[in-house]
Amino acid sequence: MSRKFIYWFEEGGEDKRSLLGGKGAGLAEMTRIGLPVPPGFTITTEACLEYVREGKLPGGLEEDIMQYMSGLEKKTGKEFGGRENPLLVSVRSGAAISMPGMMDTVLNLGLNPDTVEGLARATGDKRHAFDCYRRFIQMFGNVVLHIPHDRFEHALGRRKELLGVRNDYEIPWESLSDLSDEFKSIVRAETGKEFPDDPRVQLLMAVKAVFASWNNERAQVYRRIHKIPDDLGTACNVQAMVFGNMGPDSATGVMFTRNPSTGERELYGEYLVNAQGEDVVAGLRTPRPIHEMENELPGAYRELLRVREILEKHYRDMQDIEFTIERGKVYVLQTRSGKRTAKASVEIARSMAEEGMIDKKEAVARVSPEEIARLLHRGIDPSLKMSPVAVGLPASPGAATGGIVFDADTAEALGQKGEKVILVRTETTPDDMHGIVYAQGILTSRGGMTCHAAIVARGMGKPAVVGCDALKIDPEKREARVGELVLREKDVVSIDGASGNVYLGEVPLVEPSMSESMLKILEWADELARLSVKANADTPEDARRAREFGARGIGLCRTEHMFMASDRLPVVQQMILAETSEERQAALDKILPMQEQDFYEILKAMRGYPVTIRLLDPPLHEFLPDVEELVLELAEKRRAGAPSEEIKKTEDILRKARALQELNPMLGMRGCRLGIVYPEIYEMQCKAIFRATARLLKDGITDVYPEVMMPLVGHREEIRILREMTEKVAGEVSQEMGVDLKPVIGTMIEVPRAALVADEIAEYAEFFSFGTNDLTQTTFGFSRDDAEAKFLHKYLGAKILKENPFQVLDAGGVGKLVKMAVELGRKTRPSLVIGICGEHGGDPESIRFCHEVGLDYVSCSPYRVPVARLAAAHAAIFEGK
Amino acid sequence: MSRKFIYWFEEGGEDKRSLLGGKGAGLAEMTRIGLPVPPGFTITTEACLEYVREGKLPGGLEEDIMQYMSGLEKKTGKEFGGRENPLLVSVRSGAAISMPGMMDTVLNLGLNPDTVEGLARATGDKRHAFDCYRRFIQMFGNVVLHIPHDRFEHALGRRKELLGVRNDYEIPWESLSDLSDEFKSIVRAETGKEFPDDPRVQLLMAVKAVFASWNNERAQVYRRIHKIPDDLGTACNVQAMVFGNMGPDSATGVMFTRNPSTGERELYGEYLVNAQGEDVVAGLRTPRPIHEMENELPGAYRELLRVREILEKHYRDMQDIEFTIERGKVYVLQTRSGKRTAKASVEIARSMAEEGMIDKKEAVARVSPEEIARLLHRGIDPSLKMSPVAVGLPASPGAATGGIVFDADTAEALGQKGEKVILVRTETTPDDMHGIVYAQGILTSRGGMTCHAAIVARGMGKPAVVGCDALKIDPEKREARVGELVLREKDVVSIDGASGNVYLGEVPLVEPSMSESMLKILEWADELARLSVKANADTPEDARRAREFGARGIGLCRTEHMFMASDRLPVVQQMILAETSEERQAALDKILPMQEQDFYEILKAMRGYPVTIRLLDPPLHEFLPDVEELVLELAEKRRAGAPSEEIKKTEDILRKARALQELNPMLGMRGCRLGIVYPEIYEMQCKAIFRATARLLKDGITDVYPEVMMPLVGHREEIRILREMTEKVAGEVSQEMGVDLKPVIGTMIEVPRAALVADEIAEYAEFFSFGTNDLTQTTFGFSRDDAEAKFLHKYLGAKILKENPFQVLDAGGVGKLVKMAVELGRKTRPSLVIGICGEHGGDPESIRFCHEVGLDYVSCSPYRVPVARLAAAHAAIFEGK
Repeated sequence: MSRKFIYWFEEGGEDKRSLLGGKGAGLAEMTRIGLPVPPGFTITTEACLEYVREGKLPGGLEEDIMQYMSGLEKKTGKEFGGRENPLLVSVRSGAAISMPGMMDTVLNLGLNPDTVEGLARATGDKRHAFDCYRRFIQMFGNVVLHIPHDRFEHALGRRKELLGVRNDYEIPWESLSDLSDEFKSIVRAETGKEFPDDPRVQLLMAVKAVFASWNNERAQVYRRIHKIPDDLGTACNVQAMVFGNMGPDSATGVMFTRNPSTGERELYGEYLVNAQGEDVVAGLRTPRPIHEMENELPGAYRELLRVREILEKHYRDMQDIEFTIERGKVYVLQTRSGKRTAKASVEIARSMAEEGMIDKKEAVARVSPEEIARLLHRGIDPSLKMSPVAVGLPASPGAATGGIVFDADTAEALGQKGEKVILVRTETTPDDMHGIVYAQGILTSRGGMTCHAAIVARGMGKPAVVGCDALKIDPEKREARVGELVLREKDVVSIDGASGNVYLGEVPLVEPSMSESMLKILEWADELARLSVKANADTPEDARRAREFGARGIGLCRTEHMFMASDRLPVVQQMILAETSEERQAALDKILPMQEQDFYEILKAMRGYPVTIRLLDPPLHEFLPDVEELVLELAEKRRAGAPSEEIKKTEDILRKARALQELNPMLGMRGCRLGIVYPEIYEMQCKAIFRATARLLKDGITDVYPEVMMPLVGHREEIRILREMTEKVAGEVSQEMGVDLKPVIGTMIEVPRAALVADEIAEYAEFFSFGTNDLTQTTFGFSRDDAEAKFLHKYLGAKILKENPFQVLDAGGVGKLVKMAVELGRKTRPSLVIGICGEHGGDPESIRFCHEVGLDYVSCSPYRVPVARLAAAHAAIFEGK
Repeated sequence: MSRKFIYWFEEGGEDKRSLLGGKGAGLAEMTRIGLPVPPGFTITTEACLEYVREGKLPGGLEEDIMQYMSGLEKKTGKEFGGRENPLLVSVRSGAAISMPGMMDTVLNLGLNPDTVEGLARATGDKRHAFDCYRRFIQMFGNVVLHIPHDRFEHALGRRKELLGVRNDYEIPWESLSDLSDEFKSIVRAETGKEFPDDPRVQLLMAVKAVFASWNNERAQVYRRIHKIPDDLGTACNVQAMVFGNMGPDSATGVMFTRNPSTGERELYGEYLVNAQGEDVVAGLRTPRPIHEMENELPGAYRELLRVREILEKHYRDMQDIEFTIERGKVYVLQTRSGKRTAKASVEIARSMAEEGMIDKKEAVARVSPEEIARLLHRGIDPSLKMSPVAVGLPASPGAATGGIVFDADTAEALGQKGEKVILVRTETTPDDMHGIVYAQGILTSRGGMTCHAAIVARGMGKPAVVGCDALKIDPEKREARVGELVLREKDVVSIDGASGNVYLGEVPLVEPSMSESMLKILEWADELARLSVKANADTPEDARRAREFGARGIGLCRTEHMFMASDRLPVVQQMILAETSEERQAALDKILPMQEQDFYEILKAMRGYPVTIRLLDPPLHEFLPDVEELVLELAEKRRAGAPSEEIKKTEDILRKARALQELNPMLGMRGCRLGIVYPEIYEMQCKAIFRATARLLKDGITDVYPEVMMPLVGHREEIRILREMTEKVAGEVSQEMGVDLKPVIGTMIEVPRAALVADEIAEYAEFFSFGTNDLTQTTFGFSRDDAEAKFLHKYLGAKILKENPFQVLDAGGVGKLVKMAVELGRKTRPSLVIGICGEHGGDPESIRFCHEVGLDYVSCSPYRVPVARLAAAHAAIFEGK
């Protein structure tokens, strides 16, 4: 034999994965680093390939296997086929790329009428020995001899019937012994041959079966689907079986090297003395906490502590291991990175870094953005088992409890009194904002993941369940139905925005935490990230919260929500309804000091960092009542013969509302088009910004950095004109207030044309901020609301789109425009600052894209800031990977 | 003097334009080709530049000028400053780039108290001589001596007052003589010097004044605005004056080398014997047709015929010339390409090509697309002088007369009876289609150049005036007001869609013509063009008309208008309102044979050429009644206590209409999204197309080429799925009808994403057709209707946009996407056929763009096809220019 086809575990390692397969390499790795692994050897994938190709094992391999078995006998002190202390082995497949469940495995190989007695004597458990024996025949019969599984299962079933028992473990050893005879006769009947009693024959047959299973049908299909090459082959691992049920000095258990729930550095796990893994699973005996082992099996416990040191040192991660103690000797059967809670993940990453086991970069890489997200919302206590009454879409994580209300006014009224309410609506509109502010959470029967309610809720970090269509809402009757159940105003419900579940009544909540460890991890993340993270914040409270979450400025301060506040809306409406420019100016003069105070507070709250203020964006009709309502109101007034001045007033509003009505408001008179057609509105806003800045400077607060951002720019002339206007107002305010203001002016990039002519636009813009919500709408030609209501579910269901492009940036389409704009913009102005302020700014995959195309920052809702900070670091760490 | 600063006209030519200026080069050119030009010379721009720089004429130039004047005396046989036959000259500026009216000119130079008498004697007209004299003093005083013009005008006015006359020509020669003395005393008073009587002094002063005028303020401003360099300088032309009023053998006149109205090859023009140009202008004598000169002045007439030959041969175009006959000798004072009617333009281009004077390419280049457009519409007789009662936007050319009606139903009813009606609406919607079909023209009070009415009208070649806001329409009262004027149903008006004028009553119309010459020019155009021209046509009539206009196929056959026909709409609504898929299928089964017949007829009408059929595109709610109307109807029914089943029915329709309602229908559930969510609709349409094709094949009509086009595709998966569906249906129909159909399948490119991923889309599309209307909307983020109603006028007025991007393709933005899509698409599929079917397909500037980026065809409304054919040829001819 020219090539080496067999490796002791001691000879292998992770570097021989393609030759030894994943399992073989792992066992070898553990063996080599000094872990007590049951001894064994691996027959290589090359042997498999030759077997598959030639239909027989390579010449001389059979003899070699027997030689290695002799070695194994020596290592274990057991005898293969021996009557006293029989050596049993497992024979397992294991390819280089994991194909779970696709290929074959045989356990307990080596049993026969003689050795089974030996096993019984060694364990002192006849029932266990004969159960192993009948399982072995069954497994070998199926896997190696290809006898259908149900043949054996039928026999087992008949036996239980005969005995009048329900469970396998109730079958006494005598019957199990009979059963193994019966199984053997099934084998004889099915194959026309005797079941092989010679362990050596068993072993060679098993090895061949494992090799052959590389090409079984399900493995071939699996490879085709997962694009795994057919010429890798599987290795075959032959390993001594060990037993935890060989007396009071034997045991079995699982352990984590750290607490998987809290991340604390303590041995965590449980064990059962004189038991096998399946006893734990069967739940007949209660396992004991691992620290009790210190007294009961102190030697083994010390060994486990040693194992832990070796494992963490080697794998540099918290490990979840399975172990067996056979007659006082500890064996590690498997180790893998342990699953953990988000909290533990953060804790472990931090402490391992501080212990010097991993560096900061790796610590940051170990925590996923989603784990951070999970830690930042109140949640339903996961230990409770409850059934939801309805399930909707998990639109904004976090949980909330409160009495239901069906309109925003009631939500505001009760909320102001301190009552906890859940706002329940068919769907929400900007008119509901004042109610949403006072609600604990939002529940709607319509809408998708990016409907108004979802976006607003995520922006405010408020729990929301949307599109819960089992809920039939009748706002007039002030009730909602779920099947037969009727919910009335103030009935208490709880919603879980992370799962979409809706529960009846109050449920216990778990509070969110921004732990020391999370702060540390995020601090390290900031050191690693190239993208900086800002927040979308419209109020001083938002700004303060954003700072707490580590935002380095405000990337988008919308001014429309300021217009929407209930004390301002009447004045805003007055401005819109104005017939003359004097009337309009009078209304604007009233709004000016309010806006000025807004900006004063926000700039102050965000001192030290830039605050990007977007001038008014939405179409004006959003500030007026609905035309349909007005039409009905007018018809009713006319019918009822209302006073003519009453009718006239409604007519006036209706006329204006109609005049402002648009076929496609999303593409209509909004954004900078407003500022160009009604320059007095933008002038007022700029004045407010610069007056606020001047006042702050005079108040000694000099580290404020306002930036003026124009929405919906698509043409060089638009930004040129608005830049001129802004500079003019800045000059006037400078003169008037005796300060020297140099405005920083930039633009949103949110229509495709802006991206296409970004080189021209950059002549007049010091920064770009991608409004990827609108850019996605215009690039796809999708109206978000309409798409989600009408066809997006179908598109996602049929996999026409892999992801909702309003959640994950469409790199292939929208992303091309982003890339183009970055390149063109920087060509004109190398110092151009570029960021993103759409919903995508808080999505890790999209953040990675932003990093890759060279953006300077992302801006997202305050509650997503920590997530984005981590994602930004990941983007830098995994760059190009 | 080292350099040559003076050139005889004989020495110059068009090749010395920068040295001699435009006028000098032109006079030289005419002189050199043997035209009888009054003799003279040009002082170069180099002399001017030196004068401007140094403040004095180059050394020796004054002497040279006098030497050339001696030469001029010899050439004319007149004496400069002579008493008997005085030589008078004009001194004119003339730069290389024309700057009309910016610089100075002096006429009749050489007059003084002695020579004026000589001139009087020579002409036998004392009044004329003294009028020339006072004019000369006035002109010289103003231009050379910088005395304000009004000084002289006041004196002239006082003189007329004194004489009690109103007009200059009523002043007798004696008073003119006195006036020249008075003018001289004004000069003395203003300058403190005597008016120069020495012609040599006059000449040098005039030359310097002309040179100095290069840097007068208005010339500098003009150059700055028109970006003309400051260092070109002006030349100065000194030319002998000639007089057409020196007796019965003198005359003055203008002539065209061909008839400028019809293009016929005949001498055309008029003349006045013993007169000067100003006599013609004054209108005191009626000029006579030029052919009468053949008898009256046969020698001069023969000379004019010779001049014509020389001119057309040299300039190879119809010329408009000014001539003077002084004592039997013909002088050409100016020649230029003659202005002509569209008809003449076509005629002349064709005949000159056939005469071999120009080649076909030049003939085609000479006719402008707009001239073709003008010839293809009925127009108001331009010879009539009428005042419009109102003016709107000229939305669709052509003129129409008819009784006004205020709704589509009445238009249809009266139109079917053969009455001529003009449909008057605030604005039109697709619901008005059946009325528009029967109307002679459309008049709306709202809307812009690309509103629904405008687009539909242009598509149908129907005259339309839109946005006529002086018109106040009250559809309920069935009347419209224009100021005080009230128009009632059936009152007759006329509209001119070329000017936007609206007239009261019937006005005479001029019929359009597609002359032999136009057909010939277009035939040549087709030979030269690389782009082919197809038509947008939805009906067999459209298809036939398109063929007549030379369309080579249908580039866009919309299927929605077929759904809108009044006999089909109820079935379409039934399909939309269907609650079950059986109901929907039942409705579709009824529509199928109708659609099949549509396609049968259209394919037959366009046999020999491809017909691109676009599957259903608009949102379904366009086929349902308006929600607002339904809301009122329902409220009324409920109030009036209508039967509950009545209420239920309205409720049902309202519910469905609401369900279909969208916030931004333009970006909603339409286009291929319909076809993916309701595949049965597209399947029915494909079935209709393939069944129609199969029937035609069976009927022996084998040269039909249907192509199936998917609207609004933005993702590879969309076109992949729809391609599969189409091929499946084609296979089924093939089997069922025993034919073998291989469908040609392609896609619209009308959302930015489609252009960005055109390489992916081209995998499944055999052709691309740019829907530049929608592509413009999504690229700009403009809803066309809203933009035109709300802000586009402002954008165009403020020159933020130079052109309406819905009329002229936005090359800098939308065009970038088009280019990108062409490149990406052809990379995947080099055989990809690419065209455009938006409104831009009929716009010459946009067609040129299409040519330049390598499209294969443009498709436009049938009436624009000839225009597009010519524009396509121009694009090829002027490629890269």
